[in-house]
Amino acid sequence: MDHPAIGEAVTETEIEQALQSDCDCKDGMFPQGKMGTASRRAFLRGSGLLTAAAAIVPVKAFGQDAAGEGPWSVPGEIAKSDYGQRASFETVKRLASFGGTSSLTPLQAGVGIITPSRLHFERHHNGVPTIDPAQHRLVIHGMVDKPMKYSVEDLKRFPSTSRILFVECSGNSNAASRSANQKTVQEAHGLTSTSEWTGVRLSTLLAQVGVKDGAAWVLAEGSDGAMLSRSVPIDKMLDDAIVAYAQNGEAIRPENGYPMRLILPGWEGNINVKWLRRLKIGDKPFMTREETSKYTDLMTTTGKARQFSWVMEAKSVITFPSGDMRLPGKGFYEISGLAWSGRAPIERVEVSTDGGKSWGLASLQEPVLPKAHVRFRFPWHWDGGEAVLESRATDQTGYVQPTKAFLTRNEGVGPTYHYNGIQSWKVLADGSVSNVLQA
Amino acid sequence: MDHPAIGEAVTETEIEQALQSDCDCKDGMFPQGKMGTASRRAFLRGSGLLTAAAAIVPVKAFGQDAAGEGPWSVPGEIAKSDYGQRASFETVKRLASFGGTSSLTPLQAGVGIITPSRLHFERHHNGVPTIDPAQHRLVIHGMVDKPMKYSVEDLKRFPSTSRILFVECSGNSNAASRSANQKTVQEAHGLTSTSEWTGVRLSTLLAQVGVKDGAAWVLAEGSDGAMLSRSVPIDKMLDDAIVAYAQNGEAIRPENGYPMRLILPGWEGNINVKWLRRLKIGDKPFMTREETSKYTDLMTTTGKARQFSWVMEAKSVITFPSGDMRLPGKGFYEISGLAWSGRAPIERVEVSTDGGKSWGLASLQEPVLPKAHVRFRFPWHWDGGEAVLESRATDQTGYVQPTKAFLTRNEGVGPTYHYNGIQSWKVLADGSVSNVLQA
Repeated sequence: MDHPAIGEAVTETEIEQALQSDCDCKDGMFPQGKMGTASRRAFLRGSGLLTAAAAIVPVKAFGQDAAGEGPWSVPGEIAKSDYGQRASFETVKRLASFGGTSSLTPLQAGVGIITPSRLHFERHHNGVPTIDPAQHRLVIHGMVDKPMKYSVEDLKRFPSTSRILFVECSGNSNAASRSANQKTVQEAHGLTSTSEWTGVRLSTLLAQVGVKDGAAWVLAEGSDGAMLSRSVPIDKMLDDAIVAYAQNGEAIRPENGYPMRLILPGWEGNINVKWLRRLKIGDKPFMTREETSKYTDLMTTTGKARQFSWVMEAKSVITFPSGDMRLPGKGFYEISGLAWSGRAPIERVEVSTDGGKSWGLASLQEPVLPKAHVRFRFPWHWDGGEAVLESRATDQTGYVQPTKAFLTRNEGVGPTYHYNGIQSWKVLADGSVSNVLQA
Repeated sequence: MDHPAIGEAVTETEIEQALQSDCDCKDGMFPQGKMGTASRRAFLRGSGLLTAAAAIVPVKAFGQDAAGEGPWSVPGEIAKSDYGQRASFETVKRLASFGGTSSLTPLQAGVGIITPSRLHFERHHNGVPTIDPAQHRLVIHGMVDKPMKYSVEDLKRFPSTSRILFVECSGNSNAASRSANQKTVQEAHGLTSTSEWTGVRLSTLLAQVGVKDGAAWVLAEGSDGAMLSRSVPIDKMLDDAIVAYAQNGEAIRPENGYPMRLILPGWEGNINVKWLRRLKIGDKPFMTREETSKYTDLMTTTGKARQFSWVMEAKSVITFPSGDMRLPGKGFYEISGLAWSGRAPIERVEVSTDGGKSWGLASLQEPVLPKAHVRFRFPWHWDGGEAVLESRATDQTGYVQPTKAFLTRNEGVGPTYHYNGIQSWKVLADGSVSNVLQA
């Protein structure tokens, strides 16, 4: 594909001047004794004859120094960083919401599928506890032959598993179901993230304690102030549940459950109990607050509420372009976004630029992992007119991400949880992008 | 598999006492007005009636408070973290080497396949430059129809791609080829890491500038003080080269080439030119310092040197247990490590616990990605006697990771670069693990 509008033409003369201003060398070669000022300084500094501090000189852009004013390259400091930092020019950050009880992932700035641990969304019901991993224990009891408690070190002794998985708060984008007040994709959809989680399979732990006949449910309880607890069918625990102690190759972050949390692939965030301290095996659900007064889905069409609606259904959202951005001008843009399903791998993602009248197939970034964010991309030539951008995910069960209209018809004004309606971004002629409610 | 030796037995009475000491509730339920002290404090704090600062109380371990001394759970502070930090108890770090010109990844602490960006290895020839992304430009010129320069924002306008890939310094573990002086796996093998890299395919950029007939090589040059430069065959550039601007979902870290670097999947680290400023198309190699006086491989068997030996061949290393660790006692351990090949996907990894006399097949963590680290795992019951642990990787070309003896026979005392011999860790009866040179 040709993109003539991108970039700036340059001449060999300009390039040669810039190179000369940089040093007496060409094509990156440094013949003995022919290094120019910049390179000689760099050489001395590299050998430690100048202090590292003095060495930090922001690099000049190519062309700026065609007049020979200064180096196009820049000697650096000898890094002594044992735990790196991002560049000082970078300012992407999470956004606190719900009175600071959650922080939203900046999806608009994301690329690929991995969410940096520092930007993974968080939601807590009574703050983030400070837990000494040497003191923490996980207890497994109830309908078992042998009640046991395990330290973090104990868990690391067991066979381990790692999976790249999304975790999404069941309340993610619920406000989007009723209004377009949330300007950005971070505000509207920032309660979902993807990490590589590592830990021990719960099936391995349950084999140790010996589950009694008739066991059907497991109470999972956190050691945070809220002692958040949920009931989990034992079948899910035996299928693919993980007690995770690591996230993206290092210890789980405090706000994500340090030193250990439950991971239930594809299920709503709150049941992936963080700061996990106790698993009690029983024969019926424990009917905790979080599954009775909270986290049930009221269907205003029938007046009834869904309970134990754990699975996050197929969903997608365009992250570029998205709300509060401004396109610099007409021409080529790559529409990009994320799709995920808690039920089955993503089968396809379709993109519309005319508010859902017509759809085209997006390309999916390989590998397409089950129960993980999938990055989709769709080439778009913006003609400068008004456009409404939408994405629609379908998973391998054949389930198609619904419209808001469909959900309203079937569930009413919209439950507080599990909203997965299609998101619409409107592009105006001036290039501004805004959140609009789909009809 | 049964692991009776791991963890500690506990009684329902102890658990009940611990729960009672925590609050007046059971099974995580909080009936109105029945919250105990800890929970009431937590509740008040959650509602902001107490200061967050006062809320940080390290949680007590289960059992400690069976006497009712204090809460087993801990109220937390309301997180306001917009760019998270790891837990204060975590101390894993990179290790500076070669006089601070490189930093080694702590492979012994790693799990899964993703290396946190903060712990990705780094190697620089004249320090880490501080580059203002708004000022930086990439120039493409030489045998092209239309020389162009691109800003970071320009590059982000093009169709993008993301791949999870390893980058390994060609000098990684070269000292291991001659001695066992490097105690840990970090010291011996820490110059390899895996990230999800995102950027624009070089084939896309070369299509913009129009490559002239006869073009065969591309000079890639960095804007660091060393202006590190290498010659790359244009076929590799058109095949799978990427100009990357992101790493693990955020901007590339300064020490890894901020704001843009070349990524040549599977090729030695130094040719993945960081702080990339210039690509010059030519008809022959540019014979830069880094491919003439440096980064060639002397075969002391023949006295000849290999040049342009770009591909990192199949290699593996056991990361747990590894040098300088001590096993607490005999019993079950999961041997775990990493395998990778720059040529083809990893076909299998074999593990030996008797110094290579016998081998067993390790399990590979899915998905097995080409040109990325692959996590392998192997169950081991340590009988308490001496053992020598080794791993051996085979890629889909059929290439088998060689022994040191084989390499010495064929290449001599060992070239400085591209050493991929089998690593041996010796376990003594006291559980201590040390680096030993394979016969």
